Amino acid sequence: MEKNLIYVPNETFANFESRKRAHFVNSLSGVKSANLIGTISGDSQTNLSIVSSAFHLGASPALMGIIIRPDVSPRHTLDNIREEKFFTLNHVNEDIYQKAHQTSARYPREVSEFDACGLTEEYLEEFKAPFVKESNIKLSMELVREVPIIENGTHMLISKILGAWIPDSALESDGHISILDAGSVCVTGLDSYHSISKLERLPYAKP
Amino acid sequence: MEKNLIYVPNETFANFESRKRAHFVNSLSGVKSANLIGTISGDSQTNLSIVSSAFHLGASPALMGIIIRPDVSPRHTLDNIREEKFFTLNHVNEDIYQKAHQTSARYPREVSEFDACGLTEEYLEEFKAPFVKESNIKLSMELVREVPIIENGTHMLISKILGAWIPDSALESDGHISILDAGSVCVTGLDSYHSISKLERLPYAKP
Repeated sequence: MEKNLIYVPNETFANFESRKRAHFVNSLSGVKSANLIGTISGDSQTNLSIVSSAFHLGASPALMGIIIRPDVSPRHTLDNIREEKFFTLNHVNEDIYQKAHQTSARYPREVSEFDACGLTEEYLEEFKAPFVKESNIKLSMELVREVPIIENGTHMLISKILGAWIPDSALESDGHISILDAGSVCVTGLDSYHSISKLERLPYAKP
Repeated sequence: MEKNLIYVPNETFANFESRKRAHFVNSLSGVKSANLIGTISGDSQTNLSIVSSAFHLGASPALMGIIIRPDVSPRHTLDNIREEKFFTLNHVNEDIYQKAHQTSARYPREVSEFDACGLTEEYLEEFKAPFVKESNIKLSMELVREVPIIENGTHMLISKILGAWIPDSALESDGHISILDAGSVCVTGLDSYHSISKLERLPYAKP
């Protein structure tokens, strides 16, 4: 699959108009996870927002990172996480990716994106924050630390995985979870959704 | 796609045997990008290692983050990045994912994974670090700052994108790059490789 490549230096794409630059640079890291963050405020207002910036940070302790832009991204979500410390992460799947994308619209604080976008609140194991009923992999999370990224004003939320709900059919004997079985999708760039197809699981590599 | 879900609390998976815990927790964040980091040492020894921990950090300036475990991950790669500051990121595609995975084996310092795994060094635009010829999206990168993650001993490398090589056929008029056209694959868990299939690009969401 030989391709004809073109070179685009930083000096060129840094001067793209801002939306074009965002499309371009967001594409460069490759495939991204698609998750819905579920939160609830102190006065019980729920909130739901899609993020493509949640990533694995470590298995022991079980930690994830999420990059948030305070000036743009889900402001209500960030407020709720800071105040309440507990939130949920819910994998976006093929059945709900359009509704999940719609949560990125700027709704007023008093509107719950669950209602506005047609997704269902679910409460599990007495965890305070709402899960997404339609999601097949859901995590209860606790904020551990907020790390400011001074280079661009974003924040990294380091969070602990308190528990996981996964399809019983997806759990393999060695601990691996089949994301394919859960129907989880991925995002490229700002807005391009993809399903995944298994190529292969490879063995632990030795020289 | 209603699924029967099981609950696995932290108290359970934290006590899995370490390899099983790694498989399980690495699966929970969902789909991950697959990139090869190319480096060169001061005495011109090249090095190549696969990472699934590279992520978008911001478009302006164009930044990416990479999570590295100094005690486990590519130690030679981290040494080279710290000393030389410049490195390359190369998307793994369907033609090379098996060779790319093989770079995770622990080769001695004097062995280049390019040679050991059958991938080709390429030098572009007088950039010092080696690119992967067989990759269709390649980035020249500069280390900006290393952030210690005290919670688990990992390090986040904040790096600037200096330039991008992309297929001319993949660049869309609004700046979006078709990762599908480049053949880029993704990883779930530690070792499961997937191709992607486009569902849909969605418009900017409004209430």
